[in-house]
Amino acid sequence: MDKVNIQRLADELNLSIATVSRALRDSYQIRPETRKKVWDLATRLNYQPNPFASGLREQKSKNIAVIFPELANNFFSLAINGIEEIARQKGYQVLIYLTHESAVNETGFVNSLANGRVDGLLISLSSQTGNYDHITELNNKLPVVLFDRVCASAPMLNVATDDYESSFKATRHLVQQGCKKIMYLLALKNLHAGMMRLKGYTDALQQSAIPVNEKLIIDCDRDEKENYSIIKNAVAANKPDGLLSSIEKLGIVCYQVARDLKIPVPQKLKIVSFSNLETASLLNPSLTTITQPAFDIGKEAAHILFQLLEKKKTIPESKIIASTLIERDSTAIK
Amino acid sequence: MDKVNIQRLADELNLSIATVSRALRDSYQIRPETRKKVWDLATRLNYQPNPFASGLREQKSKNIAVIFPELANNFFSLAINGIEEIARQKGYQVLIYLTHESAVNETGFVNSLANGRVDGLLISLSSQTGNYDHITELNNKLPVVLFDRVCASAPMLNVATDDYESSFKATRHLVQQGCKKIMYLLALKNLHAGMMRLKGYTDALQQSAIPVNEKLIIDCDRDEKENYSIIKNAVAANKPDGLLSSIEKLGIVCYQVARDLKIPVPQKLKIVSFSNLETASLLNPSLTTITQPAFDIGKEAAHILFQLLEKKKTIPESKIIASTLIERDSTAIK
Repeated sequence: MDKVNIQRLADELNLSIATVSRALRDSYQIRPETRKKVWDLATRLNYQPNPFASGLREQKSKNIAVIFPELANNFFSLAINGIEEIARQKGYQVLIYLTHESAVNETGFVNSLANGRVDGLLISLSSQTGNYDHITELNNKLPVVLFDRVCASAPMLNVATDDYESSFKATRHLVQQGCKKIMYLLALKNLHAGMMRLKGYTDALQQSAIPVNEKLIIDCDRDEKENYSIIKNAVAANKPDGLLSSIEKLGIVCYQVARDLKIPVPQKLKIVSFSNLETASLLNPSLTTITQPAFDIGKEAAHILFQLLEKKKTIPESKIIASTLIERDSTAIK
Repeated sequence: MDKVNIQRLADELNLSIATVSRALRDSYQIRPETRKKVWDLATRLNYQPNPFASGLREQKSKNIAVIFPELANNFFSLAINGIEEIARQKGYQVLIYLTHESAVNETGFVNSLANGRVDGLLISLSSQTGNYDHITELNNKLPVVLFDRVCASAPMLNVATDDYESSFKATRHLVQQGCKKIMYLLALKNLHAGMMRLKGYTDALQQSAIPVNEKLIIDCDRDEKENYSIIKNAVAANKPDGLLSSIEKLGIVCYQVARDLKIPVPQKLKIVSFSNLETASLLNPSLTTITQPAFDIGKEAAHILFQLLEKKKTIPESKIIASTLIERDSTAIK
């Protein structure tokens, strides 16, 4: 049997090689029906693309890397889907590296990319990262774009959300719903995003003439079990009437704590969380969230990276994409 | 300033190089306090490991690859955490490849690994994979272990769960709770796991003297929006009193459909889903699940891969790890 290559797919479908090649990259230039025809035949014939062939021609690896902190997080799932959509259109493979929130892992991965394995890097910092030398150093060799968890002080391009405004809006919403004692679950305190979220909370309290009480700011940069105990003890001791969780996974812990302490939500305790949880509207009660534009952040960061890779004349700029406060039953007046 | 290497960490902490090296790999041979001391200093000094140094000594890449179908799925998040736990202990980096359920992507990734970039592969098949030639071919060059979505007919080692028994148990549970018209949401129909789950359902019905009705078996191997419409129409037309969802993401769709059709769960419709959803117990109502031992499946598959890599005398065997039916309110008698 003939080798299954793009030529053969093109012959069998009576299409040009360029069309088949674009269809396999899911290019928007090709009509969906044609794309489907090409993919169906490719699947049936077990077509095996050669990712290096086009790379060799162009002296490129045709790979980009994504380094990010955690897997069990809907924000990153969506952001990576956004990145992959762009990479696929450009005919690039995406190599994924997971730091598990460790700065040591992150540094190791970043350094290992200097050898030409990839053409560019998209990175979201680990919660432990306090030093950006490894990233600025790599950026001397290849384009780097940060997304979501960015460093404000470094010269790299980045795409993030409006952490300060989101947190400010969420806090003000709790005040408007009648909360007077709002507990803040602090995370990512080493990172710009974490500090901006905290500042949004304290500023909103002050503008509402509610004094900031340090006892109500709970440091949750710990492991899952510890976080549960810390939050449970803090809620039991301080009896807040509102809870603002600055990251998705703590929002789930708030529900577990309220259930285990038998505190009715929203009657005695109102809860808001930064979250892209798919089940937010199906929880009991449905959860008020600050929903981040995760897919768009990933897509936009990848878009900027490819502008740098393609050395376009217009120099791209860093970008902020706003999050949305979605009010649901967990903050309702009942 | 001196270069930060393992020697320097060892000197500053007054430990041996071997101890520091093991601590950085999170070896269980090192006491947790010592591990913490080493990691704290490594983070503070921004220690940058050289992943190639030890690989060069041993003529190994010290990388393993994980190829898996989708990111927004708690099963795979947990399984990969299990894999990474073992890889870290062994001093290996994990390269992650995401197929997005495409056989073409999968084949491309598998073929690209033949060049020595990795020492071994862990793979969970895409829902479109019908041909295993690419995997058997790679397995001639390096060890391959399949996990969860395995191929029954190929000679590779694998770790999976008891799909048939789980589905049988879930169906029988619905019958015991009074359901007479149980709809089955079919997914992964190209894969062994998908067919076993379907067979568990039909066998359990037959043993309960309920005839199998093909109209109640709904093919859901489609995209998210299509699945919602298909399930909504099928539920509206056939008015089932029970729903068994054979994959996690369809379980969420069941809740959305019941809410949008205003069908009270569990009074008029009882729902069970294969699911590792962290919020299952917090949903309204809490969701009865078949919970898969995802972390253990990942860990066990990695364990077998390293036995192969280390050429241990005892030849490892394929393994089945049982899932658990967790009864919650979505199947309660009310």
